Amino acid sequence: MPNAADRRFMRLAIALGRRGLGQVWPNPAVGCVIVRDGRILARGWTQPGGRPHAEAMALAACDARGATAYVSLEPCAHHGRTPPCSDALIGAGVIRVVTALTDPDPRVSGRGHARLRAAGLEVHEGVEASAARDANAGFLLRLEAGRPWLTLKLALTLDGRIATAGGESRWITGPEARRAVHALRARHDAVLVGAGTARADDPDLRVRDLGIARQPVRVVASRKMDLDPNGQLGRTARANPVWMLYGDAQDVPEGWTQTGARLIGCPEQDGTLEPRAMMATLAREGLTRVLCEGGGALGAGLIGAGLVDELVIFGAGKLIGADGRAGLGPLGLDRLADAPKFALCRVQPAGDDICQIWRRR
Amino acid sequence: MPNAADRRFMRLAIALGRRGLGQVWPNPAVGCVIVRDGRILARGWTQPGGRPHAEAMALAACDARGATAYVSLEPCAHHGRTPPCSDALIGAGVIRVVTALTDPDPRVSGRGHARLRAAGLEVHEGVEASAARDANAGFLLRLEAGRPWLTLKLALTLDGRIATAGGESRWITGPEARRAVHALRARHDAVLVGAGTARADDPDLRVRDLGIARQPVRVVASRKMDLDPNGQLGRTARANPVWMLYGDAQDVPEGWTQTGARLIGCPEQDGTLEPRAMMATLAREGLTRVLCEGGGALGAGLIGAGLVDELVIFGAGKLIGADGRAGLGPLGLDRLADAPKFALCRVQPAGDDICQIWRRR
Ligand SMILES: NC(=O)c1ccc[n+]([C@@H]2O[C@H](COP(=O)([O-])OP(=O)(O)OC[C@H]3O[C@@H](n4cnc5c(N)ncnc54)[C@H](OP(=O)(O)O)[C@@H]3O)[C@@H](O)[C@H]2O)c1
Ligand SMILES: NC(=O)c1ccc[n+]([C@@H]2O[C@H](COP(=O)([O-])OP(=O)(O)OC[C@H]3O[C@@H](n4cnc5c(N)ncnc54)[C@H](OP(=O)(O)O)[C@@H]3O)[C@@H](O)[C@H]2O)c1
Repeated sequence: MPNAADRRFMRLAIALGRRGLGQVWPNPAVGCVIVRDGRILARGWTQPGGRPHAEAMALAACDARGATAYVSLEPCAHHGRTPPCSDALIGAGVIRVVTALTDPDPRVSGRGHARLRAAGLEVHEGVEASAARDANAGFLLRLEAGRPWLTLKLALTLDGRIATAGGESRWITGPEARRAVHALRARHDAVLVGAGTARADDPDLRVRDLGIARQPVRVVASRKMDLDPNGQLGRTARANPVWMLYGDAQDVPEGWTQTGARLIGCPEQDGTLEPRAMMATLAREGLTRVLCEGGGALGAGLIGAGLVDELVIFGAGKLIGADGRAGLGPLGLDRLADAPKFALCRVQPAGDDICQIWRRR
Repeated sequence: MPNAADRRFMRLAIALGRRGLGQVWPNPAVGCVIVRDGRILARGWTQPGGRPHAEAMALAACDARGATAYVSLEPCAHHGRTPPCSDALIGAGVIRVVTALTDPDPRVSGRGHARLRAAGLEVHEGVEASAARDANAGFLLRLEAGRPWLTLKLALTLDGRIATAGGESRWITGPEARRAVHALRARHDAVLVGAGTARADDPDLRVRDLGIARQPVRVVASRKMDLDPNGQLGRTARANPVWMLYGDAQDVPEGWTQTGARLIGCPEQDGTLEPRAMMATLAREGLTRVLCEGGGALGAGLIGAGLVDELVIFGAGKLIGADGRAGLGPLGLDRLADAPKFALCRVQPAGDDICQIWRRR
């Protein structure tokens, strides 16, 4: 029977696994802790790009004979570029394996656990399962629902505005909030913006100053793709990935073919891109965690389609008033009961601003 | 010299004083602690209506000979309905008095301290002065600036809305937030709403279920006062005070003269009541702490005039979208730099909602 210490070591493994978020797609971000006689011998987590796996990292750092391995996801059982982790655990002399989740990947799905048991190891599954599901929500959603985890970031005044009536919007929030946005990008596989934002701000969208191994994919959603290919995104598309989602009933956006950006056709609906199809496309391309940074029209489209899992709201201690520009577009609700609902997850100051994290209810 | 223990007892006196907020206007909400040999002998605070004073309450509850009295405001020196508190402290045999503030009331203003010293007591002034100023900000503002402390409460969705496009608005926030609003009312001398809210909601505005001794004054701002005198406010104006602020260029609102409400003329400007004059009027009538509960037009008028000291925002985990009704009216800002700015003071959950308190910067 798993005990309190098992749960504690598993929580550590899950926390270590989170370090891979944004860096390991389409793989899960797994953590591993190897323990003998209550002492931690080694820690490991999935490396950028998805390899080496967490177990391999931890096993390489210790002599694991007679030890217990805590792994936040079922160890793999299939031969890929490297031998399966279940074999590695067996080969290293681990005698007990505690896991949080069964891998829904059909190539694994129970086979990793079976392999360990067949080799005579003691195996406990499902320890701290809900915390592990939470940490790998994007990976699981992609496999189970065919869409990525979607975070919508909004930077708003206290009355929900992003710009004055005249359009002045720089800066609503302060430097700490802007830094926090970079950390948020780094924990996502991709950053998504609408055509309006791409046109108005000509953003770069890359993570700065955090020394990450892998930049998030920059995704722009624009049915007509009437965007300047000589802007920041077009100019940097060879250095770091840029994906342009355009309407599949439109012509291929010629100007963009030479930039190095990937051009991906997407179903249309009501004169714009169909939000569910957009997310399905991104999942098919391997993305497990997407951060939408606006603008208000795209954010409203995604909210309206019920696709937003997490809201991150940076609130600036300012008021602009009803003549200012709204941070979220129209949702066309008939009844208040239809308003999308969220549960508070965390709230913390970010410099002079406040950062609220809400999850879909 | 005041020491750490002095500061600690003073903080207690200030906290006790806060119990009187909303109940003691036009008097200050004072706290008093009487201590001998490091032991607290008695506590007191200003009673509802403003009398007895904190010192009298504490002195009545102990034998204070040889003790130190901590009082969050200078003890009074003038004969009113009761003898001055400085005399009472002297008479009770207190040998040392520690205070936080000099009373700006011209009838006191240094005379209380002088009286104690003349009687041979040891007096220390200014201990924890800024905390005491904060606790009595309304009393001080009224005397020093001729206006009350003004709190603006907004109950908003995460995108700053209070109703759907169709006007449905009950309920944006949950029962805990609504209870917190009653507690907020209880700590203010008056609750103020605009004519739009009075007409649309026919509100009662009294504090329910908190067992308070004194209901806040209910104030409605309406230049033309074209409000039904048979609504909740008119019908209950004899039981608890209702003040109607109307334009002094208008006729006296006849329908209201029989209700028991006070009708107070107020200067007009740009077709509405002049916000500064409105606040000056309320201060002149004795109010030290006013809670504006909206609506969006009046809130914007007060914000625009720079009169809002504190914002209390109840945020519901919902989104309505830009086609919904804004919680704060237009401010007509030209530049983002002109946006009124607030500093985060406190944030706490209120049931499923979140309560943010921001103070003027
Ligand atoms: N303060 C902040 O945090 C912040 C953040 C982001 C943006 N902004 C500001 O917001 C403004 C841009 O916002 P915006 O609302 O005008 O534009 P937006 O949301 O960035 O882009 C809207 C466009 O995205 C495309 N799109 C594709 N699929 C869509 C879908 N399912 N639903 C809606 N749109 C879809 C459409 O372009 P096509 O017609 O090409 O299909 C649509 O016109 C800029 O001024 C920017 O500076 C502020
Ligand atoms: N969710 C919430 O927390 C909440 C809270 C309150 C209200 N509400 C909703 O808000 C709506 C009412 O809001 P509203 O914005 O229409 O009206 P409002 O702000 O309640 O009242 C505006 C009226 O107040 C009078 N007024 C006097 N002095 C003013 C000044 N200096 N600036 C502005 N107005 C002044 C004017 O009436 P005269 O023309 O008579 O002078 C003006 O038309 C209602 O639907 C109500 O249900 C919601």
